[in-house]
Amino acid sequence: MPYPGAPSPEILTLLTREFGADLFTGAEALSGRSRDESGVCLAPAAVLLARDEAQVARLLLLANAHGFAVVPRGAGTGLAGGCLAETGGVVLDLSSMNRIIAIDTNSVTAMVEPGVLTGDLRRAARAQGLFYPPDPASLGTSTIGGNAATNAGGPACVKYGTTRDYVLGLSAVLPTGEIIQTGTATRKGVVGYDLTRLLVGSEGTLGVITRLTLKLLPHPAHQACLAAVFPDLDAAMRAVISVMTRGHLPSAMEFLDARCLRLVGDLLPEHVRAGLSDAPGAPGEGSEALVLIECDGTLEETARACADIEAICREIGALGILPAPDEASRERVWKVRRSVSTRIHDSCAVYIPEDIAVPIGKIADMVAALPAVEARHGITLYAFGHAGDGNIHLNLTAPEEGDRPRVEAAAEECVRLALAFGGTMSGEHGVGLTKRHLLPLEIAPVSLRVQRGIKALLDPNNILNPGKLFPKETA
Amino acid sequence: MPYPGAPSPEILTLLTREFGADLFTGAEALSGRSRDESGVCLAPAAVLLARDEAQVARLLLLANAHGFAVVPRGAGTGLAGGCLAETGGVVLDLSSMNRIIAIDTNSVTAMVEPGVLTGDLRRAARAQGLFYPPDPASLGTSTIGGNAATNAGGPACVKYGTTRDYVLGLSAVLPTGEIIQTGTATRKGVVGYDLTRLLVGSEGTLGVITRLTLKLLPHPAHQACLAAVFPDLDAAMRAVISVMTRGHLPSAMEFLDARCLRLVGDLLPEHVRAGLSDAPGAPGEGSEALVLIECDGTLEETARACADIEAICREIGALGILPAPDEASRERVWKVRRSVSTRIHDSCAVYIPEDIAVPIGKIADMVAALPAVEARHGITLYAFGHAGDGNIHLNLTAPEEGDRPRVEAAAEECVRLALAFGGTMSGEHGVGLTKRHLLPLEIAPVSLRVQRGIKALLDPNNILNPGKLFPKETA
Repeated sequence: MPYPGAPSPEILTLLTREFGADLFTGAEALSGRSRDESGVCLAPAAVLLARDEAQVARLLLLANAHGFAVVPRGAGTGLAGGCLAETGGVVLDLSSMNRIIAIDTNSVTAMVEPGVLTGDLRRAARAQGLFYPPDPASLGTSTIGGNAATNAGGPACVKYGTTRDYVLGLSAVLPTGEIIQTGTATRKGVVGYDLTRLLVGSEGTLGVITRLTLKLLPHPAHQACLAAVFPDLDAAMRAVISVMTRGHLPSAMEFLDARCLRLVGDLLPEHVRAGLSDAPGAPGEGSEALVLIECDGTLEETARACADIEAICREIGALGILPAPDEASRERVWKVRRSVSTRIHDSCAVYIPEDIAVPIGKIADMVAALPAVEARHGITLYAFGHAGDGNIHLNLTAPEEGDRPRVEAAAEECVRLALAFGGTMSGEHGVGLTKRHLLPLEIAPVSLRVQRGIKALLDPNNILNPGKLFPKETA
Repeated sequence: MPYPGAPSPEILTLLTREFGADLFTGAEALSGRSRDESGVCLAPAAVLLARDEAQVARLLLLANAHGFAVVPRGAGTGLAGGCLAETGGVVLDLSSMNRIIAIDTNSVTAMVEPGVLTGDLRRAARAQGLFYPPDPASLGTSTIGGNAATNAGGPACVKYGTTRDYVLGLSAVLPTGEIIQTGTATRKGVVGYDLTRLLVGSEGTLGVITRLTLKLLPHPAHQACLAAVFPDLDAAMRAVISVMTRGHLPSAMEFLDARCLRLVGDLLPEHVRAGLSDAPGAPGEGSEALVLIECDGTLEETARACADIEAICREIGALGILPAPDEASRERVWKVRRSVSTRIHDSCAVYIPEDIAVPIGKIADMVAALPAVEARHGITLYAFGHAGDGNIHLNLTAPEEGDRPRVEAAAEECVRLALAFGGTMSGEHGVGLTKRHLLPLEIAPVSLRVQRGIKALLDPNNILNPGKLFPKETA
């Protein structure tokens, strides 16, 4: 397969003529599109700030004809380098195509352009009594197009699923410059192959999404949550599983392991902290784990569900429980969960975020296997994440930049462990650049051949986001 | 593309040697696999009653090598002829691969073979406090493999989605005889292209599903419903939409149009029937419509939700309301809904079931357009279905077999109408044989070319369910 790079100077001149003021080649514009949240930095040759679908189609037509790379980009909040122009091609910035075309209350759907911020969509739906559930941590800054390209998840996945469950249909430009409509504007549709979900999660390698029709839901009236501290993660996970097998479907079930809990324990009120073994006067290094469980529905429903869940937690031996029935107390509990990432970041020089997922019943086993990885590689590992869907954020850290090779070796070992537990190397972040070398650990040759075949079918000249998602071919 | 048919006599001998007593060529075995619920009858050359994945792989390997057609079949409950051997190939009957391998309460998942009856899976999950939500009308007789191949839906779609939302991963045999694993055993996964959902809904044309890992949910403790009669469908749909925009997410929202209501009105209790304009003593031919709304959750939740919904229905002008808070009364209300199909069937000689879907907000407009279709073609049309997801079962009927061409013409007109309302030709039944000629009305040439390309990539010799889903090529 060809591996196109930057357009030639002649083609660049042609692009400038074609797109005028929407094409940028200045240092500032390029450097602003050279990074995402992966820490990798790769500068493109040019940036097209697209205004409409016709411009997108025109750029891809030219790229396909002249063999240069195009790399679609939303807000650049990805963690896997998926929107970086590795070969110096043209970054196709979709952040200005950000119209909410319609929130249709009669059909309980939304139609949006890809550059809409997910948080803006959620607010616009909320104003009509409707709900767009997917809630990646980046929802205030990431775009719905990027969310779709990576099939973004979030805490709400346990009850509401991920982005792909809400994309009913879309318009996209294929790498040949042709425009395709997939799916339907309806909640059900079974006509032909599911090209919608082939494009969703394909990390911008099969087409550029230019419009999405999204399923909305009624907005729940109320949310309430509680945090519970358990003597160890095993007990915490027994509580999570008991909640589900006893008929409750919370809208979030998050966990922090012992190390994360120590990092943010000061944010817990005195009576909950008192249960921790490293509380002032306690024997130190504990094994405690925290679970945050949130329910949504009417005020009465959430109150009753939280009371039931509190009883289940106590029955399983919770050391301390912090109920959060209203907005203010909810905000305090979520702050504990959200502060973990920042504090990990602040505590180290080298930081690699893995986001493996395992079957829910294997979370405790997976986390129990981590101290051996730490010891073997001399690194520090923090585990937190989505207990309700098995998605564990493993944060591998070390104090000095020189430790990076050891952290990388530990990261690969974590991926192998997750796969051995029947899991996957990525629950949310995707493959992009940073994990493509690990793909063959998870995807067998037959499947990889089919996937490469689909890529070649849709993008015969490999101009769209070349090199992403697939391991490098040893030709 | 080649269009393979039956195996030659020599190959049939080879197959008999290969598969022994599991290969059938007797008249009874063949006639048992010559029909589905579409009314079409097409006899295969042979039937393989597969025992395991290795047999499936061996059959496809031979078919690919020798160029004969293989047609996968579950329980034969499809309505579109998708499992019929049009070209006289070998039917691959998967109904004996019917083991529930595991209901995993720790991971809240199930692992099953494709021949498991959907109702059996639901019961096995229920016994562990868990819930498999998709509920096609055929759930007592259709298989989970068939449900996945056609992405089966049902009334629960409004709250719980369709089959594709529950398939986490699967094993399948490709038309080349190679075995592929797709997806994950986890609730989240974003590694590589979504081949799981490419296979789900592909109507057995891209691979034969041999094992599925399914997401389960906590089982709701209780279900309660109500039926409400409105002066017309427009009011009924206003109630449905109000319920959703006021924060309720019922587990079913079904409707019957005026004609269906007349057909089964005798099953309603006196005080509800009294509101109908063709009740004894009333002025006849009414425009009333019935809505059935069901909620699930705890006893208290469902009671409160149903009370709220009843108030919304009254506010919008319901003529009569029939609450059904317990199992016995629920069964009576659902009987009204379920009796419609049988009674339509019994009332006519020619019967074509269409299952178009439109955006929820267009249901009333779509149904309002039907009398003109009836008048133009001199047929009788009954509309009922899933108000909460826009999926309308249009039952086109006529009294005599000779009327069939007129019924078929009306059916095509209904599909065109649905598309004009932003809908789709099929919400649940799929394309199969019986609707493939209409596909180009909905799927544009670019998309059709991509879909044919995927088919050719996976099935270069076109041996797996040839001719299904795609319009015939005019070569």
